Amino acid sequence: VGEFDLIDQIFKAQFAALSKASSQVTLGIGDDCALLTPTPGMQLAVSTDTLVEGRHFLSTVSPQALGHKALAVNLSDLAACGAKPVGFLLSLTAPRADAAWLQAFAQGLLDLATAHACPLVGGNTTAGPLAIGITVFGEIPPGAALLRSGAKPGDDIYVSGFPGEARAALEVFRGNLHLNPKQFAHAQSRMERPTPRVALGLALRNIASSAIDLSDGLLGDLAHVLSASGVQAEVDLGLVDAIYSIATNSINALGSDHFFSKNSALSKQQQLNCMLFGGDDYELAFTAPRTAREAVQSAALATQTPVHRMGQIHALQTPGSVFTQNLARITLLRQGQPSQNAQDWGLRSFDHFDISNP
Amino acid sequence: VGEFDLIDQIFKAQFAALSKASSQVTLGIGDDCALLTPTPGMQLAVSTDTLVEGRHFLSTVSPQALGHKALAVNLSDLAACGAKPVGFLLSLTAPRADAAWLQAFAQGLLDLATAHACPLVGGNTTAGPLAIGITVFGEIPPGAALLRSGAKPGDDIYVSGFPGEARAALEVFRGNLHLNPKQFAHAQSRMERPTPRVALGLALRNIASSAIDLSDGLLGDLAHVLSASGVQAEVDLGLVDAIYSIATNSINALGSDHFFSKNSALSKQQQLNCMLFGGDDYELAFTAPRTAREAVQSAALATQTPVHRMGQIHALQTPGSVFTQNLARITLLRQGQPSQNAQDWGLRSFDHFDISNP
Repeated sequence: VGEFDLIDQIFKAQFAALSKASSQVTLGIGDDCALLTPTPGMQLAVSTDTLVEGRHFLSTVSPQALGHKALAVNLSDLAACGAKPVGFLLSLTAPRADAAWLQAFAQGLLDLATAHACPLVGGNTTAGPLAIGITVFGEIPPGAALLRSGAKPGDDIYVSGFPGEARAALEVFRGNLHLNPKQFAHAQSRMERPTPRVALGLALRNIASSAIDLSDGLLGDLAHVLSASGVQAEVDLGLVDAIYSIATNSINALGSDHFFSKNSALSKQQQLNCMLFGGDDYELAFTAPRTAREAVQSAALATQTPVHRMGQIHALQTPGSVFTQNLARITLLRQGQPSQNAQDWGLRSFDHFDISNP
Repeated sequence: VGEFDLIDQIFKAQFAALSKASSQVTLGIGDDCALLTPTPGMQLAVSTDTLVEGRHFLSTVSPQALGHKALAVNLSDLAACGAKPVGFLLSLTAPRADAAWLQAFAQGLLDLATAHACPLVGGNTTAGPLAIGITVFGEIPPGAALLRSGAKPGDDIYVSGFPGEARAALEVFRGNLHLNPKQFAHAQSRMERPTPRVALGLALRNIASSAIDLSDGLLGDLAHVLSASGVQAEVDLGLVDAIYSIATNSINALGSDHFFSKNSALSKQQQLNCMLFGGDDYELAFTAPRTAREAVQSAALATQTPVHRMGQIHALQTPGSVFTQNLARITLLRQGQPSQNAQDWGLRSFDHFDISNP
């Protein structure tokens, strides 16, 4: 038994019960392929994302958190389509087979996989620079998938959770920001253990007109929706700011101590930059018709997910901004007026949230 | 447009026609997930394999050959299950976005994908050490999959193609073997552009009792089948040798000039070592009942795939060899007698075919 066989055994043993409990997993880990039996009539949603050390995570991250995050960013893609998780494949490249590290990594994967009834069905392990590739499978009724291309003029724009928190943690690691220990612990947790909004995505089927998950940053990812839908958008900085302004918000863990609140040590510009361009949040940005405001509210309540309205879709006219090509379809509103303040565009959207690129 | 968006555009443009021609690909590259619509009643076979530079391929390989190989090793897993390719996801990690390199790499992928009507449906690109992760999807009727666990006592053991050719090329690169230019060109092509035996796998449905594709080496992979099936095996060195012994074999490109022939400059032991332990061949090893010999022959002819009988499955008794734990279920027969010749076990089976491990 080689050391990489040992890895297979660790994962196989840890995931045996979860795999057995699935009615879609006909054959799990151990053969040339896994066999899935899709629910009759359902479409299959598939997505893959790789996390590379130094690019997507710091070498200081705990293996358990890394296991969580590697699966979370993939489940987040299912969430953005409104698909129900079915299973996943793991492609692990690691410099050596460290049993304690692997156990903890597998545990992080398993905990999140269990929460979403999403078993590991197969994969491979290779010696090399640390990288974690995951492919997820989900199910969705034909025609029900939330696509990037569905946003319509007049639709409201929403975002879940608290965008920018992950970026705040990164800037602390970089030495550019300072948070108190409680704030930092919260921000670090959002960066290292993001919450895939699977339940919200499912609840938004037949309500949202489009959706995307936030990996590149709020505005950068919104721009992908606008481009795919052939529309433009106004984002109201007042509404974005209001996400954090309610001091006694029961679903904001930090309340008035939040680092994006009025009392923050961070400048207003630092806060806005993190929120608009932060990346790595794995929240959902989505659009829905004005007539669906109550339905969106209900979906948010039913899934216990904070959801905030932040702007509106418009028909494509002249580009609203000339600051960057990528974001030209977005107009930032400040007190109802288009902002020409270059500082509002201070941080650019990234190709990828990239810890190696300050 | 960032440089990694450019990559997405290259792949999307190159694969547009192939994706459009598929009845199973409902939504391809460009959203958070791809959407597949499985053929009603079919099971889905899924598998993932990653190629890491320095471990699975030499840095000297051409990008087009690398594209071919990355997809081939994954299609080979579908072949080993008897599944029909439906599509694949690509996770590309590359140090930089080199347009010429990417075009050639994509062309290598596209050529093989076109031959198997297997479109790229999505993926992601990241900056980092060169590695190519691919996940393939295939379809198969319920119960028809060829598994590792189906070998029965009395079954014949077969192998497709010419195992060991890829290893011979590697040993030339390492300076351990010498081949003439024509021989080396052939061996290098087998190492860099393996043929996934998809058609043979499909033809062996309802004929073969078990199957596996050869990545670790003929005996090493056979051992996986034996272990999964709870059986042991006799492999006849005379039959293995005979794979290359027919001077005028029309499906052996080199004929009597083959480097595993009687006239070879390689010693008999070097030849056997490559054949038995070589790895990286992506041929199929499979078992079938004695009564299916004609059916196997027909499947080989119909798919124009060389297939060779090389031994027999037996009920589990005492281990046949004490040389390595992994291969203890295999007895090598030399002129009908179990070989206790340690030289026959000269090269061990590898965890992975590993170019970094001479």
